[in-house]
Amino acid sequence: MFQECMDNVRKTTPLVHNITNYVTVNDVANILLACGGSPIMSDEPEDVVEITSICGGLNINIGTLNKRSIEAMYAAGRRANELGHMLLLDPVGAGASSLRTNTAVGLMDELKFNVIRGNISEIKTLANGSGTTKGVDADVADAVTEENLDQMVDFAKSFSEKSGSIVAITGAIDLVADKDRCFVIRNGRPEMGKITGTGCQLSGMMTAFLVANPDHQLEAAAAAVCCMGLAGEIGYSRLQEGEGNSTYRNRIIDAVYHMDGTTLEQGAKYELR
Amino acid sequence: MFQECMDNVRKTTPLVHNITNYVTVNDVANILLACGGSPIMSDEPEDVVEITSICGGLNINIGTLNKRSIEAMYAAGRRANELGHMLLLDPVGAGASSLRTNTAVGLMDELKFNVIRGNISEIKTLANGSGTTKGVDADVADAVTEENLDQMVDFAKSFSEKSGSIVAITGAIDLVADKDRCFVIRNGRPEMGKITGTGCQLSGMMTAFLVANPDHQLEAAAAAVCCMGLAGEIGYSRLQEGEGNSTYRNRIIDAVYHMDGTTLEQGAKYELR
Amino acid sequence: MFQECMDNVRKTTPLVHNITNYVTVNDVANILLACGGSPIMSDEPEDVVEITSICGGLNINIGTLNKRSIEAMYAAGRRANELGHMLLLDPVGAGASSLRTNTAVGLMDELKFNVIRGNISEIKTLANGSGTTKGVDADVADAVTEENLDQMVDFAKSFSEKSGSIVAITGAIDLVADKDRCFVIRNGRPEMGKITGTGCQLSGMMTAFLVANPDHQLEAAAAAVCCMGLAGEIGYSRLQEGEGNSTYRNRIIDAVYHMDGTTLEQGAKYELR
Repeated sequence: MFQECMDNVRKTTPLVHNITNYVTVNDVANILLACGGSPIMSDEPEDVVEITSICGGLNINIGTLNKRSIEAMYAAGRRANELGHMLLLDPVGAGASSLRTNTAVGLMDELKFNVIRGNISEIKTLANGSGTTKGVDADVADAVTEENLDQMVDFAKSFSEKSGSIVAITGAIDLVADKDRCFVIRNGRPEMGKITGTGCQLSGMMTAFLVANPDHQLEAAAAAVCCMGLAGEIGYSRLQEGEGNSTYRNRIIDAVYHMDGTTLEQGAKYELR
Repeated sequence: MFQECMDNVRKTTPLVHNITNYVTVNDVANILLACGGSPIMSDEPEDVVEITSICGGLNINIGTLNKRSIEAMYAAGRRANELGHMLLLDPVGAGASSLRTNTAVGLMDELKFNVIRGNISEIKTLANGSGTTKGVDADVADAVTEENLDQMVDFAKSFSEKSGSIVAITGAIDLVADKDRCFVIRNGRPEMGKITGTGCQLSGMMTAFLVANPDHQLEAAAAAVCCMGLAGEIGYSRLQEGEGNSTYRNRIIDAVYHMDGTTLEQGAKYELR
Repeated sequence: MFQECMDNVRKTTPLVHNITNYVTVNDVANILLACGGSPIMSDEPEDVVEITSICGGLNINIGTLNKRSIEAMYAAGRRANELGHMLLLDPVGAGASSLRTNTAVGLMDELKFNVIRGNISEIKTLANGSGTTKGVDADVADAVTEENLDQMVDFAKSFSEKSGSIVAITGAIDLVADKDRCFVIRNGRPEMGKITGTGCQLSGMMTAFLVANPDHQLEAAAAAVCCMGLAGEIGYSRLQEGEGNSTYRNRIIDAVYHMDGTTLEQGAKYELR
C-alpha cells in the first residue's frame, strides 16, 4: 500500500500550494520536488485564491504567521474546501502564543482539514484548548513513549473523531490516526530534531501524498511519515565524519529524491492499532 | 566575449539589489557572492529607493509578491531607471494568477527593463496577455524544442522588439534574444528542474553580469545563462552516490564559485541565430 | 572560561527568539540548533510579546526590515527588557539607508541591549551617526587592521561605554569589548565573507551564549565569536575539491554541531586588551 502511495506521487506530480513560514520554506519546496511533487508558495490574500485553484492541495503552516498571511490562510482554505482539494494544517507553535493557538483553532472551526499534523504539544493544545508547548518544539513531558502508547493511540483516535481530520502526531514514535485506526510508526532518527523544519517538510510532502492518493488518505499520510523517517535513517547512514545537522538536512532530502515505492514499503516500520 | 563578461563581474564586484521571493532568496544571495557580486535584499517601500541608489542593478522577482513588495518594486524600479541602473524582471508565476500577470505587465508598462527572464510559459503570458502556466513551472506543451526552434527564436526576437528588453527564455534549450540576434544555448541538465529556484538564482546572477558589462548586455545575459548551465553540468558530475536535489543545489553554487572566464568560454555551448 | 560558556549552552538549551531577515533565517535556526540552543522566529507585533516571554533571549536583526517587523522589534524588545532577557542588536545595513540607520538608532535609544554586533561600517554608523556602509558588507576603508588596532580597540571600548552595551565588531580581526576590556580575536577565514549570513548566524548563536552565561556576558559574546571563527577554520579544512561557498556554509554549521567546550577553548585565538 505504501509503495502504491509513493508511486502515485511520482506518477501524478501533485501541485501543492504552501502558505508556510519563511524559516524552512526552501526545504519544503525542495522536499516536494524530491518526492515527485511540485510546490508553489503564495501568501498574499489577493493572490492565494487563484493560486490554490490550480493546485491539488493546500498546506497551511502557521509558523511566522502575520495578519496578512492569516487572512490568506482563511481565503485559500475556503477555496480549497469548495474545490474539494486536500487541505492540511501544521499548527507550528500552537500553545506558545494566543495568536498561534487562536489561529489554529479558528482555522479548524471554519475549515475542513483532511489532516492535522504537529508535534504532541501542539496537538494537545488543539485537543485540550491549552498546552505546554516550549517554543516550536514539543515538551518532553508530553512525549509519546512505549509506556503511554495505548493511551496516546486512544487520544489520537479520539481527537480525530472530534476534529473530523486525520491526526498525525510526530516525534520519537509517530502516530497517524483516524477515529478507528492508528498507524504507530517507528522510523526516523533522534538527530532529525536538530534540523530546523523537518516537521514543516513532512507537512508539505504529506500534502502531495494526499493529493496523489485521495481514496486512501490515512495510508497516504502514514506513508509520508514513513518516507520522512526512512529518509532520515538513510541520510544518517550516509553522513561522513564531521558532518552535522546542516549537511544532514541535505542528505534527508536527497534520500527522499532517491526513494522509490519498493524501498519505502520495505523500510517502513509500523504497526496498525 | 563570455570570458570577458565573467572576468568583469569578478573584477568589479557589482552590488545587486534584489526584491525577490522568500523561498529561494538565500540561494540567490549565495550565487551572487559565488559569481563575484554582492547581494542586498530590501522590499520595504520606505527602504528600497535609497538601497537601490547605492547599487548597480535591481533584480525584481515577483514570486511570493504581496501588496507591500509590489509597491516597493515600482518605487525601486523607477529609481533604478532614473539612475540608469540595470533592471531585470523575473515574472515568476505570470499566467498562474491575475495578480502575478497584472503585476508583471504593469511593471513592464511603467519601467524600462534591460532584461526579462522567465520560463517559456511566463514569457508567453507576457507576450500574448495569457498563458498556460502550471504553477511556477513551464507547461510541457510550451517547451522550446529542436522542432519548433526557428519559430521560438522568431518569437523571442519579436517579443524583444515589442518590449524593448532583452528576452531570456530558459528551459531545456535557452534563448537569449534582442530584436536582431538570438543566442541558442544548450548548457545545463534536466535535473536542475528538480531544484527550487535555479531560475531565481540565474536572474540574480544575470543582473550582476549586466552591471559589470553595460556595453554588451546581450552577451552578458547569455554568458550568465551559460554560466548557470555549465555550473549545472559541473555540479552534476561531482554528485556522489545517493546525493539528490538538495546537495545538487549546493554543488551548482559551488561550481559558480570556482568558475573562471576561461572555463566559461570553453564550456559554453551556443550558437547565434 | 570559553569552555564553560559553550558547555553551559549545551546544558541549558537556551530558547532564543529571533526577529531576523528572511535571507539567512534558515541558517540562523540551524546554527542555533547546532550549538545547543533552540530557535523560534516571530515578527508579527501581535505575536512577539508572548513569544519572547517564553524565551531567554531576543535577537533583533534589521536586515529586510519592514514597518510591521519594526513595530515587532520595539514591542518584543520592550518586553525582553522588562523581563531581564538577553537582548542583542544586529544593525544589518545601518548606514546604507535612512530607515535602517534610524531604526537601529531608535532601538538603541529606547531599549537596553546587552550586545550590539555588526561589521565595522555598521558600528561606525551607530557610533558616529553616519557611515560609509557599502550595502550590507563593510567598507574596506573601515577595516580593523594590525596597523589601526590600538585605535579601534579604544573606539570599541568607548562606544561600549557610550552605548551601555557590549560591542562586537566582526571582520578579519574581531573585537568584543565592554568599556574596560576588549577581546581581540583572530579566528576565522576570509572565505567566510563569501557566504551570506555568517554575521546573522553569529548574532543568533551569540544570543544563546548570552542566555546561558548571564554572569559572564563579555566572555560569552567573545566565546561565540571564537566558536564561529573556529568553525569556519574547521569547516574550511574539511572542504573537498570543487566545493565552494554553498557547501562551506553547511560545513561551518556542521562544525558548530560537533564543537565541544574543550575544542573551543583550545582553538580560540585571542588576546585581552
